[in-house]
Amino acid sequence: MNPIAKTPKPPYYAVVFTSLRTDNEDGYEQTAKKMAALASEQPGFLGIESVREEGGPGITVSYWKDKDSIRGWKNHAAHQQAQRFGKEKWYQHYRIRVAKVEKDYGL
Amino acid sequence: MNPIAKTPKPPYYAVVFTSLRTDNEDGYEQTAKKMAALASEQPGFLGIESVREEGGPGITVSYWKDKDSIRGWKNHAAHQQAQRFGKEKWYQHYRIRVAKVEKDYGL
Repeated sequence: MNPIAKTPKPPYYAVVFTSLRTDNEDGYEQTAKKMAALASEQPGFLGIESVREEGGPGITVSYWKDKDSIRGWKNHAAHQQAQRFGKEKWYQHYRIRVAKVEKDYGL
Repeated sequence: MNPIAKTPKPPYYAVVFTSLRTDNEDGYEQTAKKMAALASEQPGFLGIESVREEGGPGITVSYWKDKDSIRGWKNHAAHQQAQRFGKEKWYQHYRIRVAKVEKDYGL
């Protein structure tokens, strides 16, 4: 399986979510899966890549057509609830960076 | 320890490197460490975040002041050698995305 998102030719947008979890597992896995599935149904969604080290940091990069589609997903009601739980119990630290992909290449 | 890079106020650049390794470990760990250390000494380097799942995909995001500093690191002689080995033996697939960070926020 190739875990690399099949994104179109740039330009498009990337949202880089880097996080460090707490020890609180309450509902985390279930919600993380649900949010990944729900994100993929949103208008403008182009792909997602996600890696987490056991007990360590995680990086999830989601790709979007434009800033409007990112805003739409950020404001989605179920996602907003997940964001609240994230701040309250699942994450010690996180940072979200919204970036415009100008160029890509690979192997 | 906080694994999240202490980047300045945007705009700045992100290079998202998503990869799937081969089983070939020959020199990989040593070179990966050396390249992370060397990258951090380059002009315009702002930070790096890296996560790899055991036997699975990895995502490394490095942050840079501008496109010139990204180009300088891409063309660094020791890094070029590492890139050759990467294509020849360490990676099955990878994708590099160069993106301009417009906004960031976090917890």
